Amino acid sequence: MPPAPDIRIPLDVPSEEQERYRENYRKITHGTGRLMLFAGDQKIEHLNDDFAGEGIHPDDADPEHLFRIASRGRVGVFATQLGLIARYGRDYPDVPYLVKLNSKTNLVGTSQSDPVSSELYHVRQAVDLRDRAGLSILGVGYTVYLGSEYEPLMLYQAAQIVNQAHRYGLITVLWMYPRGKAVKDERDPHLVAGAAGVAAAIGSDFAKVNPPKVGGSVDAALLREAVAAAGRTGVVCAGGSQASVPEFLQQLHDQIHVGGTVGNATGRNIHQRSLDEAVRFCNAISAITLDDAGVDEAMRIYGGGG
Amino acid sequence: MPPAPDIRIPLDVPSEEQERYRENYRKITHGTGRLMLFAGDQKIEHLNDDFAGEGIHPDDADPEHLFRIASRGRVGVFATQLGLIARYGRDYPDVPYLVKLNSKTNLVGTSQSDPVSSELYHVRQAVDLRDRAGLSILGVGYTVYLGSEYEPLMLYQAAQIVNQAHRYGLITVLWMYPRGKAVKDERDPHLVAGAAGVAAAIGSDFAKVNPPKVGGSVDAALLREAVAAAGRTGVVCAGGSQASVPEFLQQLHDQIHVGGTVGNATGRNIHQRSLDEAVRFCNAISAITLDDAGVDEAMRIYGGGG
Amino acid sequence: MPPAPDIRIPLDVPSEEQERYRENYRKITHGTGRLMLFAGDQKIEHLNDDFAGEGIHPDDADPEHLFRIASRGRVGVFATQLGLIARYGRDYPDVPYLVKLNSKTNLVGTSQSDPVSSELYHVRQAVDLRDRAGLSILGVGYTVYLGSEYEPLMLYQAAQIVNQAHRYGLITVLWMYPRGKAVKDERDPHLVAGAAGVAAAIGSDFAKVNPPKVGGSVDAALLREAVAAAGRTGVVCAGGSQASVPEFLQQLHDQIHVGGTVGNATGRNIHQRSLDEAVRFCNAISAITLDDAGVDEAMRIYGGGG
Amino acid sequence: MPPAPDIRIPLDVPSEEQERYRENYRKITHGTGRLMLFAGDQKIEHLNDDFAGEGIHPDDADPEHLFRIASRGRVGVFATQLGLIARYGRDYPDVPYLVKLNSKTNLVGTSQSDPVSSELYHVRQAVDLRDRAGLSILGVGYTVYLGSEYEPLMLYQAAQIVNQAHRYGLITVLWMYPRGKAVKDERDPHLVAGAAGVAAAIGSDFAKVNPPKVGGSVDAALLREAVAAAGRTGVVCAGGSQASVPEFLQQLHDQIHVGGTVGNATGRNIHQRSLDEAVRFCNAISAITLDDAGVDEAMRIYGGGG
Amino acid sequence: MPPAPDIRIPLDVPSEEQERYRENYRKITHGTGRLMLFAGDQKIEHLNDDFAGEGIHPDDADPEHLFRIASRGRVGVFATQLGLIARYGRDYPDVPYLVKLNSKTNLVGTSQSDPVSSELYHVRQAVDLRDRAGLSILGVGYTVYLGSEYEPLMLYQAAQIVNQAHRYGLITVLWMYPRGKAVKDERDPHLVAGAAGVAAAIGSDFAKVNPPKVGGSVDAALLREAVAAAGRTGVVCAGGSQASVPEFLQQLHDQIHVGGTVGNATGRNIHQRSLDEAVRFCNAISAITLDDAGVDEAMRIYGGGG
Repeated sequence: MPPAPDIRIPLDVPSEEQERYRENYRKITHGTGRLMLFAGDQKIEHLNDDFAGEGIHPDDADPEHLFRIASRGRVGVFATQLGLIARYGRDYPDVPYLVKLNSKTNLVGTSQSDPVSSELYHVRQAVDLRDRAGLSILGVGYTVYLGSEYEPLMLYQAAQIVNQAHRYGLITVLWMYPRGKAVKDERDPHLVAGAAGVAAAIGSDFAKVNPPKVGGSVDAALLREAVAAAGRTGVVCAGGSQASVPEFLQQLHDQIHVGGTVGNATGRNIHQRSLDEAVRFCNAISAITLDDAGVDEAMRIYGGGG
Repeated sequence: MPPAPDIRIPLDVPSEEQERYRENYRKITHGTGRLMLFAGDQKIEHLNDDFAGEGIHPDDADPEHLFRIASRGRVGVFATQLGLIARYGRDYPDVPYLVKLNSKTNLVGTSQSDPVSSELYHVRQAVDLRDRAGLSILGVGYTVYLGSEYEPLMLYQAAQIVNQAHRYGLITVLWMYPRGKAVKDERDPHLVAGAAGVAAAIGSDFAKVNPPKVGGSVDAALLREAVAAAGRTGVVCAGGSQASVPEFLQQLHDQIHVGGTVGNATGRNIHQRSLDEAVRFCNAISAITLDDAGVDEAMRIYGGGG
Repeated sequence: MPPAPDIRIPLDVPSEEQERYRENYRKITHGTGRLMLFAGDQKIEHLNDDFAGEGIHPDDADPEHLFRIASRGRVGVFATQLGLIARYGRDYPDVPYLVKLNSKTNLVGTSQSDPVSSELYHVRQAVDLRDRAGLSILGVGYTVYLGSEYEPLMLYQAAQIVNQAHRYGLITVLWMYPRGKAVKDERDPHLVAGAAGVAAAIGSDFAKVNPPKVGGSVDAALLREAVAAAGRTGVVCAGGSQASVPEFLQQLHDQIHVGGTVGNATGRNIHQRSLDEAVRFCNAISAITLDDAGVDEAMRIYGGGG
Repeated sequence: MPPAPDIRIPLDVPSEEQERYRENYRKITHGTGRLMLFAGDQKIEHLNDDFAGEGIHPDDADPEHLFRIASRGRVGVFATQLGLIARYGRDYPDVPYLVKLNSKTNLVGTSQSDPVSSELYHVRQAVDLRDRAGLSILGVGYTVYLGSEYEPLMLYQAAQIVNQAHRYGLITVLWMYPRGKAVKDERDPHLVAGAAGVAAAIGSDFAKVNPPKVGGSVDAALLREAVAAAGRTGVVCAGGSQASVPEFLQQLHDQIHVGGTVGNATGRNIHQRSLDEAVRFCNAISAITLDDAGVDEAMRIYGGGG
Repeated sequence: MPPAPDIRIPLDVPSEEQERYRENYRKITHGTGRLMLFAGDQKIEHLNDDFAGEGIHPDDADPEHLFRIASRGRVGVFATQLGLIARYGRDYPDVPYLVKLNSKTNLVGTSQSDPVSSELYHVRQAVDLRDRAGLSILGVGYTVYLGSEYEPLMLYQAAQIVNQAHRYGLITVLWMYPRGKAVKDERDPHLVAGAAGVAAAIGSDFAKVNPPKVGGSVDAALLREAVAAAGRTGVVCAGGSQASVPEFLQQLHDQIHVGGTVGNATGRNIHQRSLDEAVRFCNAISAITLDDAGVDEAMRIYGGGG
């Protein structure tokens, strides 16, 4: 297990919410400063592409599959839209939630129009759901497409969301994706570092970036520039989307121990499996992320020996 | 009659409105969990195309025809614009209403500009009409054109409307239509499933979709992916617009019993008939939807033997 | 005189404003249910084109001409912008006013850009003027260009204005004009009927439409579809803009008695005359509209024998 | 001196502000109903073009030059942006100010994009400066580019500003300029009259127009249509920008006595001179405008014999 | 040391905030009226380009480097985004901060779209951070791209920010950059002067401009027009971005003593050095700016002999 870090509370958390922020941060990182985020916002982001089709387990067709995984598996937080949480939350009261505040479908491509993803919900509505329904809503998330012609809208909403969320003691995760006609190489390590730095400048607790690539291949060391640029903002990263389980876990391990990230955000790679396998895969990811387990130990957990 | 389902109240309904939500849900589904929605928003959506012309009964020229049908026929809810309800509601106080909050005309085609339909009324105004005039306003509706360049506006308004409506104990129906330059096949079953899933992600109680087609022909089984993707959000579907009455009823029956939908949203197919026939057709549809009647029994009702 | 109709108060008029609405409706229709609207919003809509030039009486150069006519002639209501009413109203306190809430100039043509006319004033400001200055402001008006790419903005403002106006006991008139690149024939009877139906759907008390034409010529019977489509929303119509006086009055008579309209909205045809003639023309129009006078009787009034 | 006119207070001035409006009107017109407006908004409108260059006195390089002129010369009101007033006002407390609420630079030309000049300050902020700092802020101003594709925005802001300003007892001046791709001849007398009429329709106290031209040459008589169209809204006009002093004064005299205007708005022609000359030129203009002086008398004042 | 100037408090500072404004002004200028602004907003403006790469010291990779410099070096104020201040401010409570309220990335170039940089934070949020966290937030900053098609948005936000900031006793700095398709030469001295004059017109305390050039080379005397145009608004300037240290200091000295500026805004030239060198360079700049030191003395300080 990594040493429990001191929790540095940002100054836009008012004094009356500092204890809640500290507790939320402790819960979302299992006291480790590391984040295992189970991403379940794809019902809007990718429509039904991630939930039905070749190679996808039939369990995944039902949205409740996401909640079952989040409930039985070991996750830091389960990120999805507010509407879905409101619908299933009563039956899954113990899941730690992060409300993803914006989402767009994948229908309009960048060749047609630069990407724009606007707030669907305001921070205040996530806070209301937390306070009225007693759910364990620990944080909020938002995606920024840097380099889009709509960047000003998204940067504004992101900056406001971080500031507002902190006002209510919530943890923030920003998905930082360079994308648009002006962006030649979304995975360029220097550009990814820039994106991570923007998340730091607008005060997010965590920044999710895609793994940088040079010449088409990933290398965890390429993350170091982003990790440095983000400073006290923790960088989390997606694993390889096409990877086999051991490859995925090795990449995650490298991202943390070579690249310096503090965790991962994983979605499809988890929920496209049967409930049982998804839970075991969650736990394997969490072992690496939260317990500093090695890949072999994680593979044992995935294999059911956890 | 289908077994009365447990009513699962979403968590964005505050405790003081939960009894009203439960009662609204019970009324709008006649206690069955199924929805027979009589759609009467075409005076804006289709201008006068649905109300005058060849094959349309002269009764349909008068907007009051819609209210007469809704009053005498058996419907779960009659959906139309707030202005029309305010004008005729005093004479039809017993009709169960759903306020359709957005509408656009059909003049600007997708080849000219991607579709955008913006809120005409706020949820609060529907609530005011309910509370001041004592009308039986059970819910609100909204159309989302996924894949339009204006998708962000509509997704935002839809998400806000569901959240606000639940705050006041109202039931929500979202019309989910993929449309725009980026949409190649609006009826593709996988895309329709994606649209139904979006309605679930933003928390709607019901999603209305168009019947999916493969190779130009409908097949109720194609709805299963959408029904699964929508999870606890009930899917309702339009019948075939050109169908004969028995074909229409058979398709509806199949949608429910083969496709897994929980009802229908029908407009022109009802109101373009004389008042008497329209009422009988309403009742035939409701028999299938609400009573699990077979097509033969529904045809008897349509024939006046109900 | 047509039989005094029952006044049906729409349900978005709150109980404390119902008496005022009833009184406003009675005044604006002179107790007949018919509307003679004297339109004086052209100083923005047509700049100075309607007020100076060949065939226009010099009296019309001064904006006060409009108020003099409205004061001495018999009109249901005088429609113009709030600024003009605020400037002259103190000297014309007995004129019944309708505040036209939006206006645009005629400089940017449809070939350059689809028409958009946005609110200049909010309903609340018309109400303030009524309540503070004690003016007889009976209603508000707004123009909607259906089929414009800016239709969503105008439909939203129109729906909101009707709802707000009713909240304050005011009568509403919507100018419903199909216009824009998508509109091939603005005068098509079926399209005009659609426009009238939209006004009904958003709850307006009256809809002003342009006289429909087929093959370039008007025929009052062509209005019947619009009158039916509008239901309880009264349809009023402009007279022929180029017509001689007897032709104009005959057309108006036909519109009411053949087409089923409940009145007229007339501007230039009145105010481009000398004050004396304008007043007599007003009174002739009102005789047909409000008293069910025949064209001969109206011509006698116009000739000074009224 | 022209006879002191009755002051007609518009009805959107509430009763508790009528005395202030009357007093502001008296001050801004020196009790004459005529307006000598010293325009000093060019630091944004023309950047530094009017303040440094050939033929411009070095005194004009310093923004304080404007305040020195306004303080020592005889002006009805000095119009400039709020920021500049806030910076220098403490040292020039006796200057009568008019806050110009919108401004744009001259960088983006009409060939690139239709002109748009949006509010920089709200009326409320001018009122705050008046009430907190005790400055003599008598009115507010705003420019409308009629015929621009952004006309709806500017017409809305202008109408709102007049209504709000009157609510606080302030006098309003609208700069009415037809401009944009749709405008062929900005100086056409009929179009200028239309622009003046729009200012009347939205209730402004004064409208500033550019001198109309036919065939490239000005003629004060061409203003008569605009003066008539504006009705009770006073028309003020710029002098010839290139004229010699006697020509300028003659044109101003003609505008008033031939064209019927009630004053002038003059900027560069004043402030591009040395302080002493600028003050004498101000006084000459004011003699014509406020005292009905002849051109010869005004020339004596300009020559130092005033 | 330059003589301590009288502090002229602008009139939009309310009386209850005048003492705070005076104190902020004294602190930010070290009582001299001169401003040494350490600019650290590049993590958004230039992504990671200024923080990693050839010729950049590895210390600069970590955002905390900026705070270490601001804490140990002698600066008037450290300008960066609110999010970063909130994250590191607790450990650097003695740094004087200026919150840069808008920022954009450099991904979308002017050839693709005119520049737009919109508010990320409102003045009120900077005030909240000051008041709740007890940080020494002395002012706010904002960039305006004059000549961009988005100029109206930025001029409005800038004018509002200055007015709001003064309301809370804060000092304002506007970055005034002509940029966009309409701008042929961003460094033209007359245009730079125009930009400085705009900052004066909207009331900013300081305007940051880029050094003007004629024929590609800078000359401090070219600043005089801008300094004059800005009047009481102090002009600060960037040093040469490519210059050697002595060249940089000489240019700064010339800007102040030849051009008439009141300080500098320097970013990369400071923070791309090691902490120790950056601090010494800061101090050298401050010696010239705040103490009227000569270049030789400043070089001694830079060399460690300070």
